[in-house]
Amino acid sequence: MILNKQVVDQHNNQLLDKHKRNFTHLSSDITHLDYILEKLQQFQIAIPSWALGTGGTRFGRFSGAGEPGNLEQKLEDVGLLHALNKSSGAISLHIPWDIPTDADKIKQLAGSLGIAFDAVNSNTFQDQPHQAYSYKHGSLHHVDPRVRKQAVDHNIEVINYGKSLGSKALTVWLADGSSFPGQLNFREAFQNTLASLQEIYHHLPEDWKLFVEYKAFEPHFYSTTIGDWGQSLLLANKLGPKAYTLVDLGHHLPNANIEQIVSLLLMEKKLGGFHFNDSKYADDDLTAGSIKPYQLFLIFNELIDGMDLHGMDHASGLGWMIDASHNLKDPLIDLLQSVEAIKIAYAQALLVDREALKKAQQSNDIVKAQELLQDAFRTDVRALVAEARLRMGGAIDPVQLFQENEIRSQLIAERGVNTVATGL
Amino acid sequence: MILNKQVVDQHNNQLLDKHKRNFTHLSSDITHLDYILEKLQQFQIAIPSWALGTGGTRFGRFSGAGEPGNLEQKLEDVGLLHALNKSSGAISLHIPWDIPTDADKIKQLAGSLGIAFDAVNSNTFQDQPHQAYSYKHGSLHHVDPRVRKQAVDHNIEVINYGKSLGSKALTVWLADGSSFPGQLNFREAFQNTLASLQEIYHHLPEDWKLFVEYKAFEPHFYSTTIGDWGQSLLLANKLGPKAYTLVDLGHHLPNANIEQIVSLLLMEKKLGGFHFNDSKYADDDLTAGSIKPYQLFLIFNELIDGMDLHGMDHASGLGWMIDASHNLKDPLIDLLQSVEAIKIAYAQALLVDREALKKAQQSNDIVKAQELLQDAFRTDVRALVAEARLRMGGAIDPVQLFQENEIRSQLIAERGVNTVATGL
Amino acid sequence: MILNKQVVDQHNNQLLDKHKRNFTHLSSDITHLDYILEKLQQFQIAIPSWALGTGGTRFGRFSGAGEPGNLEQKLEDVGLLHALNKSSGAISLHIPWDIPTDADKIKQLAGSLGIAFDAVNSNTFQDQPHQAYSYKHGSLHHVDPRVRKQAVDHNIEVINYGKSLGSKALTVWLADGSSFPGQLNFREAFQNTLASLQEIYHHLPEDWKLFVEYKAFEPHFYSTTIGDWGQSLLLANKLGPKAYTLVDLGHHLPNANIEQIVSLLLMEKKLGGFHFNDSKYADDDLTAGSIKPYQLFLIFNELIDGMDLHGMDHASGLGWMIDASHNLKDPLIDLLQSVEAIKIAYAQALLVDREALKKAQQSNDIVKAQELLQDAFRTDVRALVAEARLRMGGAIDPVQLFQENEIRSQLIAERGVNTVATGL
Amino acid sequence: MILNKQVVDQHNNQLLDKHKRNFTHLSSDITHLDYILEKLQQFQIAIPSWALGTGGTRFGRFSGAGEPGNLEQKLEDVGLLHALNKSSGAISLHIPWDIPTDADKIKQLAGSLGIAFDAVNSNTFQDQPHQAYSYKHGSLHHVDPRVRKQAVDHNIEVINYGKSLGSKALTVWLADGSSFPGQLNFREAFQNTLASLQEIYHHLPEDWKLFVEYKAFEPHFYSTTIGDWGQSLLLANKLGPKAYTLVDLGHHLPNANIEQIVSLLLMEKKLGGFHFNDSKYADDDLTAGSIKPYQLFLIFNELIDGMDLHGMDHASGLGWMIDASHNLKDPLIDLLQSVEAIKIAYAQALLVDREALKKAQQSNDIVKAQELLQDAFRTDVRALVAEARLRMGGAIDPVQLFQENEIRSQLIAERGVNTVATGL
Repeated sequence: MILNKQVVDQHNNQLLDKHKRNFTHLSSDITHLDYILEKLQQFQIAIPSWALGTGGTRFGRFSGAGEPGNLEQKLEDVGLLHALNKSSGAISLHIPWDIPTDADKIKQLAGSLGIAFDAVNSNTFQDQPHQAYSYKHGSLHHVDPRVRKQAVDHNIEVINYGKSLGSKALTVWLADGSSFPGQLNFREAFQNTLASLQEIYHHLPEDWKLFVEYKAFEPHFYSTTIGDWGQSLLLANKLGPKAYTLVDLGHHLPNANIEQIVSLLLMEKKLGGFHFNDSKYADDDLTAGSIKPYQLFLIFNELIDGMDLHGMDHASGLGWMIDASHNLKDPLIDLLQSVEAIKIAYAQALLVDREALKKAQQSNDIVKAQELLQDAFRTDVRALVAEARLRMGGAIDPVQLFQENEIRSQLIAERGVNTVATGL
Repeated sequence: MILNKQVVDQHNNQLLDKHKRNFTHLSSDITHLDYILEKLQQFQIAIPSWALGTGGTRFGRFSGAGEPGNLEQKLEDVGLLHALNKSSGAISLHIPWDIPTDADKIKQLAGSLGIAFDAVNSNTFQDQPHQAYSYKHGSLHHVDPRVRKQAVDHNIEVINYGKSLGSKALTVWLADGSSFPGQLNFREAFQNTLASLQEIYHHLPEDWKLFVEYKAFEPHFYSTTIGDWGQSLLLANKLGPKAYTLVDLGHHLPNANIEQIVSLLLMEKKLGGFHFNDSKYADDDLTAGSIKPYQLFLIFNELIDGMDLHGMDHASGLGWMIDASHNLKDPLIDLLQSVEAIKIAYAQALLVDREALKKAQQSNDIVKAQELLQDAFRTDVRALVAEARLRMGGAIDPVQLFQENEIRSQLIAERGVNTVATGL
Repeated sequence: MILNKQVVDQHNNQLLDKHKRNFTHLSSDITHLDYILEKLQQFQIAIPSWALGTGGTRFGRFSGAGEPGNLEQKLEDVGLLHALNKSSGAISLHIPWDIPTDADKIKQLAGSLGIAFDAVNSNTFQDQPHQAYSYKHGSLHHVDPRVRKQAVDHNIEVINYGKSLGSKALTVWLADGSSFPGQLNFREAFQNTLASLQEIYHHLPEDWKLFVEYKAFEPHFYSTTIGDWGQSLLLANKLGPKAYTLVDLGHHLPNANIEQIVSLLLMEKKLGGFHFNDSKYADDDLTAGSIKPYQLFLIFNELIDGMDLHGMDHASGLGWMIDASHNLKDPLIDLLQSVEAIKIAYAQALLVDREALKKAQQSNDIVKAQELLQDAFRTDVRALVAEARLRMGGAIDPVQLFQENEIRSQLIAERGVNTVATGL
Repeated sequence: MILNKQVVDQHNNQLLDKHKRNFTHLSSDITHLDYILEKLQQFQIAIPSWALGTGGTRFGRFSGAGEPGNLEQKLEDVGLLHALNKSSGAISLHIPWDIPTDADKIKQLAGSLGIAFDAVNSNTFQDQPHQAYSYKHGSLHHVDPRVRKQAVDHNIEVINYGKSLGSKALTVWLADGSSFPGQLNFREAFQNTLASLQEIYHHLPEDWKLFVEYKAFEPHFYSTTIGDWGQSLLLANKLGPKAYTLVDLGHHLPNANIEQIVSLLLMEKKLGGFHFNDSKYADDDLTAGSIKPYQLFLIFNELIDGMDLHGMDHASGLGWMIDASHNLKDPLIDLLQSVEAIKIAYAQALLVDREALKKAQQSNDIVKAQELLQDAFRTDVRALVAEARLRMGGAIDPVQLFQENEIRSQLIAERGVNTVATGL
């Protein structure tokens, strides 16, 4: 289904008075209002194709209904999100879950919905039917060169799919690791991974980026071969200028200071992309901002600081993507909530008085520095985010519109109850 | 397949000289040798029916081959383990994965293999086909009394299956929890759980125990309704004398002192059962003793101390079970490794000079107390464990026998490559 | 020094227009405005006497200047805070750091400043000069009854000091624990602790409460004898109706769900008191709300829910105290920041639409429940908190007033640079 | 005091028979016995000068007695340890706690005891009397160049002390960090640290190494400027070939896989030194091997593997040091226990059949790899370690000798009860 513009307008008319009152009040104290609104309008967060269906855990999955059954329907779903929030103008495809067999047709559909193609994602953590070698013991790090070659070839194939759609980046997340002491020679696993990535890098188009993701644990429970930002950065540096580190918020050990990692990766000009989600215990893949909203704000605070320093454009300088698992809530609503939380954190970080912060830091005025950050975070910026959305034709309250118009029911009517999206 | 006694004898003959040399050397320093050997022989660890197949994570499962395709074959597998190690003389069934449709036949088969029926396990964390209500939002804690009733009825059904086989305990592990702040009223969730458990308790035969398991997180990522030993103990106390807490090693927050929990639960006479596995990060469900063998020893040290104080028989006083997930290794070998590690820890703990330890503690002689524990742990007790096994007709080195006799290949020949056991 | 009312008025006049604008805007959407303002005015958070000086770590302490050198000056400091924020109307004394040798005089001084005496705190984690027995190996849990008696007597002495001042509660935080496996018999340590606490309880006046604090680790690094809420609750239940659990936010294992603990303790009518601070790694004792403000809000959300259910008065139903360590910032400013963060979280939690939340929970509407909590948390309630303060004669922006009026410089002028407050 | 050779001989004579029996039994199965004994004899672990006194926490310190009151007595203490275990033939000095005012005399004394001078350690985490600038807000990372210069100068001074004694390495551990979001510009802090280290590096003698230590948290609780191995490696690479990373076991986030870090640092030829201790929760600084002995073994397994690959001599290839805090036990006994645990882990790792392990890894034989490591770890190697000690003239059981000969009492008699060693 395609969202009717009228539906959006009707929704906005209902909420406009209240919104305007809030926006006017809020904006009266903001000196660089236009700049912030412009930034908020430009900021787009890619939706991964696998996040449009119900997620699960190893203990089971409780399916939703009306899930998108093919790539076209997934694009439609992202189109719906984008029509509502004007900030989801990109999709990130996962191969082989979402192979664009007819790339031109897919591009055309995406174009009609205002959707671009973000990074493509390879999958060497699962075996596919008719695959020659198993990834049970890893892929790019595997001791057997034939397995490595198969995994490299798969990544090249993914690049080719991406080229046909206009993607400009390949994200490599490896499950490769070990679950028992002794299972792996850490050094050789690292070096095999490097050699494999070098082959993939060799096939990367000149204007592409290679994102090297890291993760502390799961699905292996003793070691992960690209386990932290240090290992990812080491690989990215050895690979060359097109290789970057990708940070996923849920891929760290307990209590990690992620904002510091972000800051240092930007310092090294090696931060490439970002996967948003939230977590309390492990890689919980919850809705962005649902558990630690202040951390999300602090990360944006560093992102802005580091990107501005290097003259990087906020919207295009990094690859932004949600990577969550929607086990309990409607995936589309969950994604709307994530995008909203991300934009709120971004807006709050844009509000930070950077000059004053710099001055406080230079004089070790900890109280002032803390007050400046808390002042921005405590500000209710929702009207700012809504105004940016409104100016682009989106909905003042996307979740409310989605629910009041019973969009999921419409999708179920279209697609049926028992459709299941590919993914985890 | 049934393991031929001759195969075991042949294996033992090969290793006997070396074993005897080690055993003789070791036993020369042990004052209460017979006592320890007797204890080791009596100690049996139940095998859960779901652990006989290949496990997986939410990212996928890499199947093994020759998995048991039905309950009879699962019993055979446990029979094989028991023939090898003489310490796996019980199976713990999970309903509905392993329903004993013909209880008498199953009992007869088990009896012929020397296998008893340990605690039965209910499952309200997955939906079964044709189930009236979904457990997506929980089971015993559910806001809807109809869902609670369905889950209670299922548990009563599980008790009945258990009665037909001679089980004497019901283990209730609830996935019930929440993944987002606000989702749940913690208090009402607890009280609904209590009320549901009270109904189940009401149906529990007089000579049964009810094991209330707790878990910190997963599959929910914000709260678990029975999240720690404090909550489990609260429930067990409110339920009555037949209700006990069950400890699973992987179900704690990082760095928890599990041995202290064990000690206090024994003090309160409310420790009922134990699930063995090992973990580095979360509920990793790895082979027992593969990551933190000293912790396993310290736990047994408390178990012995507390059980002896209350005159509890080591073998029958608590329900002992392995609860691991065999994602990478052959499940049967993995189980043999777990049992071996558990018995090593038990043997080491039996070696501790308790009188001297008590004296050291009474005089705050920390050095001495530490030396006493380390002395026991550093002792190579493998010959002791092997001797106990040997005296019962088991194999000196079960893993080696399993591999040299290519037992898995024999099972594949019998069962085929693509059989898949029920479970996670 | 005593803060001149004129100084506050002058400050408020400057900020009044802006404040009124914000307050008017905010209050237009709040239905139960008067109720919230009243609650905010009543809510008082006690200041511990040891938090008025510079804190330190085991690696050292970097002293501030103008610290209060005696109990009278500490009272003055709390008086200053209370004059500024009207929410710090109580002090919590620690014995023997702050012995009120002339209780009447101290009471009179406190009364003149509007300061009440909150829970008194005993100290058995340090040795005092001329003490007969050392607490090196613990106090209430000690194997030697003479040490236990000494520690019990000290607690009785503390109760007596408290009685002389009008305190109504004793907080017992025990460092008792062990740093090495084997050092302690957990069970006997628990039972010794219980017996000691029973003696103390026996001396507790009828209208007093006994707060049993727990802590996961530090200063012992293997076990703590009262290590978690389960152990504290067990003790409180065995002690009797005057005994309660006290929760300190920093005393948990990583990732603990503290709000769930709070909810269950309220359910059991055994939550007695609360120590506010914040932390990222361990018992970091940072400014409240400086690291995880959403967690603080979620805790208040449970506190309100549970207290309302039992008809407990928010202000008097529990003992509220800050327990932080001011290693880097001016202690008085740090305390103002903590109180502000606590009141913001409380105000946000008061905003939650409880009826709607209940309804969402009853229908498993996770989206709605999440939106309700986030809606309250994202609201900028600072004007609400400021208005409550203003109506009581406090300052609109206490930190700003403190800094602009160079209050610390005035204190240094009065007290000198090198005064050092007793405490950690 | 100097340990009389006769005392050692007498002790050994008592234990010799039992030792020989154990050693003979053990050695019968070891193919490369001489190699292992030789390695064990060569392996020396430096004792830090600050670990010879009683340690403490921020909550207090419970002093021991007979502590060394000056550098000469500290050397004597290390001499005692070395006479007992023949593995403590080096001391690591900390400036300004242990300034060698008369270097020649100190060198002579050390020489007479068989003690070499290991890495020297600077201290910029505490303020010293009469210091121009405070380190309250950091040292090498400080925003003020004058503070950085002071800290650089101090490090140069430490190098000079080290040169006068024959040290060949400088260890820099920085407490520099922040406790509140916003306090620090992470990037500039890193760059200031780099610039400061470059100046220090510039003054480093050609044959010296610079060890850059990292730590996750404490004494700062939000960020540490050199917080993990990735940051340390980044600095070491930017500094040059003489700069290395130093790993302290207690300086990681929960659950970190330290052995993998060690392996990768060796791969990069940037592992320089090692600080041994053990911990359960944070930087607990407990006796090595007292909590996680299997982890210690796994680390040595990687150390041997990586060092052998690069042809590094085990004894001299890395800087080995204990860095523990002896809060409860006699520091000298505690150090003996640490050295013993380290040598046991080293001996077990030397036992690993590396060829077989390599083969198992190459064929993904996880069971075999695990069995090989567990086989080595489960072996009781104490007789091997004792034999190596015996052959060098040390004691079969150093702790027992220390206690039976009441060495501490002799030290108290010499030094008095109330001497206090410098340190934490």
